[in-house]
Amino acid sequence: MADNRKVGVLGGGQLGRMLIEAANRLNIQVNILDAAASPAKQISAHNGHIEGSFKDAAAVKQLAQCSDVVTVEIEHVDTQMLEEVAGQVVVEPSWKTLRIIKDKYAQKHYLKEHGVDVADSIDLEGKGSKGLKEVGVTYGFPFMLKSKTEAYDGKGNFVVNGEQDFEGALKTLGSRPLYAERWAEFRMELAVMVVKTKDGVLTFPTVETVHEDSICKLTYAPPRNVSEKTAQRAQDLAKKAIGAFEGKGVFGVEMFLLKDDTLLVNEIAPRPHNSGHYTIEACPISQYDAHLRAILDIPIPQAGLRLREPAIMLNILGGKTPDSHVKVANEALATTTASVHLYGKGDARPGRKMGHLTITAPTLAAAEREIQPLIDFVDNQKGKPLGPRTESKEEPLVAVIMGSDSDLPVLKAGLQILEKLEIPFTTRITSAHRTPDWLREFSKAASDTSLRVIIGAAGGAAHLPGMCASWTTLPVIGLPVKATHMDGWDSLVSMTQMPRGEPVATVGINNSTNAALLAVRILGAENKVIRERLRVWMEGNEKEVLRKDKALLEEGWESYLQTMGK
Amino acid sequence: MADNRKVGVLGGGQLGRMLIEAANRLNIQVNILDAAASPAKQISAHNGHIEGSFKDAAAVKQLAQCSDVVTVEIEHVDTQMLEEVAGQVVVEPSWKTLRIIKDKYAQKHYLKEHGVDVADSIDLEGKGSKGLKEVGVTYGFPFMLKSKTEAYDGKGNFVVNGEQDFEGALKTLGSRPLYAERWAEFRMELAVMVVKTKDGVLTFPTVETVHEDSICKLTYAPPRNVSEKTAQRAQDLAKKAIGAFEGKGVFGVEMFLLKDDTLLVNEIAPRPHNSGHYTIEACPISQYDAHLRAILDIPIPQAGLRLREPAIMLNILGGKTPDSHVKVANEALATTTASVHLYGKGDARPGRKMGHLTITAPTLAAAEREIQPLIDFVDNQKGKPLGPRTESKEEPLVAVIMGSDSDLPVLKAGLQILEKLEIPFTTRITSAHRTPDWLREFSKAASDTSLRVIIGAAGGAAHLPGMCASWTTLPVIGLPVKATHMDGWDSLVSMTQMPRGEPVATVGINNSTNAALLAVRILGAENKVIRERLRVWMEGNEKEVLRKDKALLEEGWESYLQTMGK
Repeated sequence: MADNRKVGVLGGGQLGRMLIEAANRLNIQVNILDAAASPAKQISAHNGHIEGSFKDAAAVKQLAQCSDVVTVEIEHVDTQMLEEVAGQVVVEPSWKTLRIIKDKYAQKHYLKEHGVDVADSIDLEGKGSKGLKEVGVTYGFPFMLKSKTEAYDGKGNFVVNGEQDFEGALKTLGSRPLYAERWAEFRMELAVMVVKTKDGVLTFPTVETVHEDSICKLTYAPPRNVSEKTAQRAQDLAKKAIGAFEGKGVFGVEMFLLKDDTLLVNEIAPRPHNSGHYTIEACPISQYDAHLRAILDIPIPQAGLRLREPAIMLNILGGKTPDSHVKVANEALATTTASVHLYGKGDARPGRKMGHLTITAPTLAAAEREIQPLIDFVDNQKGKPLGPRTESKEEPLVAVIMGSDSDLPVLKAGLQILEKLEIPFTTRITSAHRTPDWLREFSKAASDTSLRVIIGAAGGAAHLPGMCASWTTLPVIGLPVKATHMDGWDSLVSMTQMPRGEPVATVGINNSTNAALLAVRILGAENKVIRERLRVWMEGNEKEVLRKDKALLEEGWESYLQTMGK
Repeated sequence: MADNRKVGVLGGGQLGRMLIEAANRLNIQVNILDAAASPAKQISAHNGHIEGSFKDAAAVKQLAQCSDVVTVEIEHVDTQMLEEVAGQVVVEPSWKTLRIIKDKYAQKHYLKEHGVDVADSIDLEGKGSKGLKEVGVTYGFPFMLKSKTEAYDGKGNFVVNGEQDFEGALKTLGSRPLYAERWAEFRMELAVMVVKTKDGVLTFPTVETVHEDSICKLTYAPPRNVSEKTAQRAQDLAKKAIGAFEGKGVFGVEMFLLKDDTLLVNEIAPRPHNSGHYTIEACPISQYDAHLRAILDIPIPQAGLRLREPAIMLNILGGKTPDSHVKVANEALATTTASVHLYGKGDARPGRKMGHLTITAPTLAAAEREIQPLIDFVDNQKGKPLGPRTESKEEPLVAVIMGSDSDLPVLKAGLQILEKLEIPFTTRITSAHRTPDWLREFSKAASDTSLRVIIGAAGGAAHLPGMCASWTTLPVIGLPVKATHMDGWDSLVSMTQMPRGEPVATVGINNSTNAALLAVRILGAENKVIRERLRVWMEGNEKEVLRKDKALLEEGWESYLQTMGK
């Protein structure tokens, strides 16, 4: 680097370790305050590390003295100490921010004050079971009882289902500062990594997080079955939330996506976060690169925060036996193309984060297919019944829409081609004249889904593909269907003669085979696997005709005609 | 990892360092034999390293004693020593392989014996200027004079242009064991990283390497203007070459692509190689992951060696001043999304490899656009005149082919649309009847180029798009042109009524606007940037019509008609 600034980090666990990976590449010295041979120190050989606890004031001062910028890999730090050293060294993010965020109730309150949507919450400090009763009246059951501080991976949370739970709840959490939160009936959990720099606020893409036993198990980038609009709303909300705080660095923003598509911020982490591990492989600039750059004022182009490919991250947790996690890592190495990260932690305890792995693939469905056996392996190891789980179904690339079910028989040959060439598709009935609103709704939403091509079959006036093309930017193929009059000419001309501006790619009358093959060609334009499938299929056709030619030559035309039964 | 095997490496430069990056992630201990604080040791804090030279026999023995597998980051090692320790520790790749490869003449001879294409060469050891004269007669001038050993980054090579060079050549290289090589007039240099495992031989994709002053400057993955077939041939040749050697690990195979498309192996490196740095970001499994896995018998799925995205690697070399390389790194961080790697080497000497950077992008052209200013920065810093250089021109995505130049006026509106929406295209005249062979050649090669969509314009019998579609798997758009008879109906029907199997996406007669817009929709199916451009353009059209409607409402139809001049 141009300068020799040194970064000091409170904590040397896996987050510190991955931050050092990023720092090593830029040849930046990172001084870790943590126990000897902590995960971060293992991959950083210099004499600037400090042995001790990041809760020890003297050690923090020592770290500050030998560093130019001090940051944290955990928010459960003594912000009083950081406030003190902030006079002599840059602390990022600000100790003020850390102080607000480490108290979850203060964090929610602060967000609400700054106009960020969060779940409603009630302070319960010192209110005992009387307070719980009041919450039950105000929010109904269930509600969440939460510790304001030192809460992570579900530790410090308690679900209160009714008055019968009060005693147990207070027994578990009563000694801690508490607050209650209205129950959020969420459809899924989303998360966004946000980067706050000296110049502004940037975001990584939205991901879906899946928790098990209150610990993050999986992240999906992009989230499954979430529209781009919703993903963008999540990024906007995360940006707004982090914009409200002081200081630089990356922040993890966890959110609930409710059943009505409302987004609520659930929790903020003022540091790299488990939900951002995927960025190491999937983005040109990782969350660790971004944190380092942000706190050192090294530029970050927003373009570097994009997804190279869809990605799935799976945490590798300690399991029943001391080597459960090793078995998962070895299974991943043997059966997938995953990047495996083991953190160099000592003992594996059940639920302890021992490592993670990330799979990237050209499509999320392909990544899901690749990782599913590994998820099964993990579940099986945990003794979790595989039971009913989401079928990892391929999202459709082609929509075959028809004006009426009477077009279906004509479409049959084309649908068979799509199946043969393994193109996932969906079939819908959308009449331009009987269901114009439904066609409009379908067409407007299409480009926001997994769809890449639309085939519209219609007879007569055959407005279906033309109207669809007017409401979408996707390529629309028109299949003229021979209806009652004019031998299909009416539909053929209606489709080809679209006005300048909204083309319909028209194929021959009733030729659904060609409509399907055209869709395959369009998909194959960018997808070599599909294109190769098409090439092999065309080669098969070529061979078939050559075989027939040979037979005709050898048998003579009369005999050949007889075998044709004509 | 499941086991605690330790890897010993002779040499701790940048290759050892990046190998350790990979090992750190799997928590595998790597013992480095090299000077204290060598680049590799800086990111690996444990007490298993050995201080000393990898040329020191005692140190190598010490390394062997504390390691389970010994490997190298450089081939210029004492293979006698390795042969000795091979009894007590696994050495990968085999010392036999290293012995052959470290002597370039022996290497070429060995490859030739195993049926691998290499440039012709003549042994010159002990033959002096008489030998050179003989080579001049046999090969003509120029020819390459090369040192058999200790040659890298151009050191040890001498171009002999005529008898007048003999004295200088012998003065420079005379003290070394020499051989001569026939001059290879190459079009470009290619390289393939190959992985030899206990189960077989795998390859990474083919890349193009660009050398400057005999040092690798850039690699392009995939290579520019090289067909997929040639790239595959390069992988096959590299596989064959490495298949001839004993032992496990990654090997770099550098090749010449001659002007007649012949491939010759130039040189082999029995270790990770500069031309494989790009794999860290661009492939699910990097060359360093692969080397580690191969020597430890950890499985490597071939699918992990694919390109996630096209990538360009630029070496960061020491320059005129001690901080030239730092300036390049900072410029890269400030202006690109590159992953920057600095190796933690001490002094920067001109030409010393201080680091590298890799840019990945959805297309190679996009990566080229991003990196070009940085290449200019480097060239400018070196004082190299920017002069005539390859224009980083966008490769065409659309080919607009026409049966005759008389179709060009009809195409004009469509070509303007392509320009407006910034779609790179090419226009060609390819008559189905007057130049059937040229059309066939063009169509067969199309999918192997940058092209994604073809627009075929033709009048009359209008066989052009249909024949093109029969020879390609790319989507073909048919634009019926109104010729002398039948008002264009002839062409329209000829295009739509293609037989089942080879569809032509037909648009309206003379409607080149729609042909172009359909091409844009097809490209936009997978490319959101293009799709967004189309959406904005369509929105503009919508606004224009709404504006006209407002005017008609406000002015009344008679006044409106007058302003139309009708």
